[in-house]
Amino acid sequence: MSTGKDKLRQVIFGVNTPAGKAFDVSLLILILASITILMLESVQEINTRWKSSFFKLDWIITGLFTIEYLLRIWTSERKRRYILSFYGLIDLFAILPTYLSLFFVGSQALAAIRVLRLLRVLRVLKLVQFMGAANKLRAALKTSSQKIIVFLFFIMIVSIFVGTLMFMIEGREHGFTSIPRIIYWAIVTLTTVGYGDIAPQTTLGQLLAMVLMIMGYGVIAVPTGLVTADLVRQNADKDSTNSERTCNLCGNTNNTASSKYCFECGTKLD
Amino acid sequence: MSTGKDKLRQVIFGVNTPAGKAFDVSLLILILASITILMLESVQEINTRWKSSFFKLDWIITGLFTIEYLLRIWTSERKRRYILSFYGLIDLFAILPTYLSLFFVGSQALAAIRVLRLLRVLRVLKLVQFMGAANKLRAALKTSSQKIIVFLFFIMIVSIFVGTLMFMIEGREHGFTSIPRIIYWAIVTLTTVGYGDIAPQTTLGQLLAMVLMIMGYGVIAVPTGLVTADLVRQNADKDSTNSERTCNLCGNTNNTASSKYCFECGTKLD
Amino acid sequence: MSTGKDKLRQVIFGVNTPAGKAFDVSLLILILASITILMLESVQEINTRWKSSFFKLDWIITGLFTIEYLLRIWTSERKRRYILSFYGLIDLFAILPTYLSLFFVGSQALAAIRVLRLLRVLRVLKLVQFMGAANKLRAALKTSSQKIIVFLFFIMIVSIFVGTLMFMIEGREHGFTSIPRIIYWAIVTLTTVGYGDIAPQTTLGQLLAMVLMIMGYGVIAVPTGLVTADLVRQNADKDSTNSERTCNLCGNTNNTASSKYCFECGTKLD
Amino acid sequence: MSTGKDKLRQVIFGVNTPAGKAFDVSLLILILASITILMLESVQEINTRWKSSFFKLDWIITGLFTIEYLLRIWTSERKRRYILSFYGLIDLFAILPTYLSLFFVGSQALAAIRVLRLLRVLRVLKLVQFMGAANKLRAALKTSSQKIIVFLFFIMIVSIFVGTLMFMIEGREHGFTSIPRIIYWAIVTLTTVGYGDIAPQTTLGQLLAMVLMIMGYGVIAVPTGLVTADLVRQNADKDSTNSERTCNLCGNTNNTASSKYCFECGTKLD
Repeated sequence: MSTGKDKLRQVIFGVNTPAGKAFDVSLLILILASITILMLESVQEINTRWKSSFFKLDWIITGLFTIEYLLRIWTSERKRRYILSFYGLIDLFAILPTYLSLFFVGSQALAAIRVLRLLRVLRVLKLVQFMGAANKLRAALKTSSQKIIVFLFFIMIVSIFVGTLMFMIEGREHGFTSIPRIIYWAIVTLTTVGYGDIAPQTTLGQLLAMVLMIMGYGVIAVPTGLVTADLVRQNADKDSTNSERTCNLCGNTNNTASSKYCFECGTKLD
Repeated sequence: MSTGKDKLRQVIFGVNTPAGKAFDVSLLILILASITILMLESVQEINTRWKSSFFKLDWIITGLFTIEYLLRIWTSERKRRYILSFYGLIDLFAILPTYLSLFFVGSQALAAIRVLRLLRVLRVLKLVQFMGAANKLRAALKTSSQKIIVFLFFIMIVSIFVGTLMFMIEGREHGFTSIPRIIYWAIVTLTTVGYGDIAPQTTLGQLLAMVLMIMGYGVIAVPTGLVTADLVRQNADKDSTNSERTCNLCGNTNNTASSKYCFECGTKLD
Repeated sequence: MSTGKDKLRQVIFGVNTPAGKAFDVSLLILILASITILMLESVQEINTRWKSSFFKLDWIITGLFTIEYLLRIWTSERKRRYILSFYGLIDLFAILPTYLSLFFVGSQALAAIRVLRLLRVLRVLKLVQFMGAANKLRAALKTSSQKIIVFLFFIMIVSIFVGTLMFMIEGREHGFTSIPRIIYWAIVTLTTVGYGDIAPQTTLGQLLAMVLMIMGYGVIAVPTGLVTADLVRQNADKDSTNSERTCNLCGNTNNTASSKYCFECGTKLD
Repeated sequence: MSTGKDKLRQVIFGVNTPAGKAFDVSLLILILASITILMLESVQEINTRWKSSFFKLDWIITGLFTIEYLLRIWTSERKRRYILSFYGLIDLFAILPTYLSLFFVGSQALAAIRVLRLLRVLRVLKLVQFMGAANKLRAALKTSSQKIIVFLFFIMIVSIFVGTLMFMIEGREHGFTSIPRIIYWAIVTLTTVGYGDIAPQTTLGQLLAMVLMIMGYGVIAVPTGLVTADLVRQNADKDSTNSERTCNLCGNTNNTASSKYCFECGTKLD
């Protein structure tokens, strides 16, 4: 028995009906438009010329997002679950900045969070299989997470240690003006980014930098090795990945084996 | 029964007869010559001095390429297939710029596409075994492609998100003049290239940059892990690679198992 | 039979009693405070303003660390073992610089070693499982160490060789002023850090740099491959990691299978 | 029956007798001394002051190397084999530059090749096990070599193609003065070195650079994956590595299974 509210839910949360697809594609276009406006606003020449247009467009988009947000709450079967879900919070934070800009100057800039709405694109494009690939990646990262934390901790200690040594060796006149700044340099070097805005000038400093570089170069093997080894093992026991549960309504595949309701739209799972 | 046209096809598309080899080697020399001219033309001192010579040489090479292209079409058994094939299109685009330069100033520069003709080198050098290695690589990339797309999507979202944050933190005076420019900076940092033409100056900006670097450093593990895991699995089931079908006439090994005609020269496969 | 000294040992070395936990958390806060002071001292504006406060705080922290060090020696069951252990030496070196600063100007800077006390954090947070992950990493690095040394030796020879060649090609006027400096450049390039403070200007120099970069890019595969292959094998024979022995008192899991006493606190193992 | 010549061979080529060890250690010291002199000579301040001392020392070392070279030829059982071997040629090229400097100014600089004599260090230190590790690495690189060549070929084509496009987009005024120079930039970017001496300024140029970076970042997975997959397989069939043949006289382990004489010292193998 499908009431008007039920139909609306099908359109907003579902992806399988023509109306649902049309809704999702419109939403995707709206999100991309809002990001494009955000970017164009940041370019000074463009902003000074089209300021008032951007202002109007921003309010129109925020209005549409607000209506969508309220409809999502109204049609959701488990309202609290949706509001507190990852996507629910992003939907809220995407509309807040524009309203806050009425009270606080500059809060407009928080609209950056609107970018995260792009995550809906995955679902909109019905990339169920891509979600599967994403889930595998996430699983590999999760298994390796303990080792990766140990690894980050190690990088932190090395950076602070080298930073303090380098402060003594190079001194302030070569750009190594404070330990926090040298830790920034150490991370830039360890990760092989190497901006070159700070670089050692003394022979001893260059020697220490060389040790740090080779260490960073060798150590890059560690996270790679960890993730790879876990992916190799994952490939070995493929059947373990079949335990994912897909929601018939919205195609969300992130539900755990023990889920009874889809965490995205609140629909009951079989 | 081998007519003149058949013999010519053997010479142009084949690599097994002495005449076919001679043709391919001449073609290779011609391609390398055309690329060398393209490069020398770009060096200002050389160009101003030899301008007229380059002009003549360019027309001679284009003429020869045109004759070759027409002969390929004429001798090909399945003309349309050749014209619309990857190599057929490159052969066409390699000669177009010179002709277009008669009508449009600057279109000459499109000759860059001539570089792609170098791909023929692989075939000319009869590197059938190298093609095999290339195919394996392609297969590994194909299997991992879904995960790599998810990965690129993730990088895109992170870049836009960090870009917007950084725009607020650093502001215009430190070179972070617009969000698109900061996205460029974020990609430069995430991929650990690190030109240093834009670099954060404030402590908060450097902190965010450090998080981005370590993320990029850890995240580099992901594509590596994906490709490696697939290569390891590929090694495990070696026999699956024997399904390639090689063309007896031109040595092309890219034909799929269901191909009835070689997509390169149109010859019937057994 | 638990005397006062035994109880104190439980507090200082142990992590399982409430008092032990409180002691460890206080210690952690003290260590973090000492590092924060070290960092703030290095920022010129902050230092000139709060110099005397930093001086006092530094002596207070050193005093507390000294008391802790003496208590550790007094309560330890196997005193010499603790003093000569890795942690014992760090505990000593962490308090020495402040005392040395009475006699030698500048020795204060050696306080950098205090950073290493952060390693205690792992134990304080009772990250026994993280220690397990760290042990696995260490085992993988150990198995690959021979190959990594060969690899470093190779990098060294390549750097010296390229350095000497580059000195001849570029000469002093382009910043390549001496071979040691070019070796620094070669390492910066091989490890893909690329500061850009020294960069080749001549065409020949850029050609050699390109070879070095591609070599470095390809060669990065080697340490990664080594560590990964060892981690994959390690995953295959999981049971071998069960031989670790954990100390009931302090949770130290680094003891070898043949250890009779915990090397951290000297407690007898079962 | 051991004549004087035989004994001398034991000393020069062998590493198992005390005299042989003493000879090798002296040689190692001499090589390191010659490299140190080469480096110090390149530092302008040091060179102007100690020029005559360096001149004398250089001739003394060259004299000793010459005597060693002649003795090696005289005592070798298979002279031609030694002279044409890898080490034989390095031994020759290490002494030539000093003699050539009598006739040609600047040929002195070729002494860089002396660095390669360091490879003897591996043997001198009797690092037979390290040689084993090096051999495994070499085997992994050899198996992957075909794929790595395809990979380098791909990088070359991408660099030339992007280089030509970038020349059109950025133009001469932004440092992209000629296609060969842009190819250098493309390699600097693809390998994530990123000096920053040349960087795109236009939005379109930065867009193309971003594509190149992400490509380089993703593509780095390929050589790593290849080497790793081969190392994993190598670990699986360990027994295949036992076919190495070690020379009893000099400890050289590089001889192939079919070798009848050690290629280093010419001694007959069992």
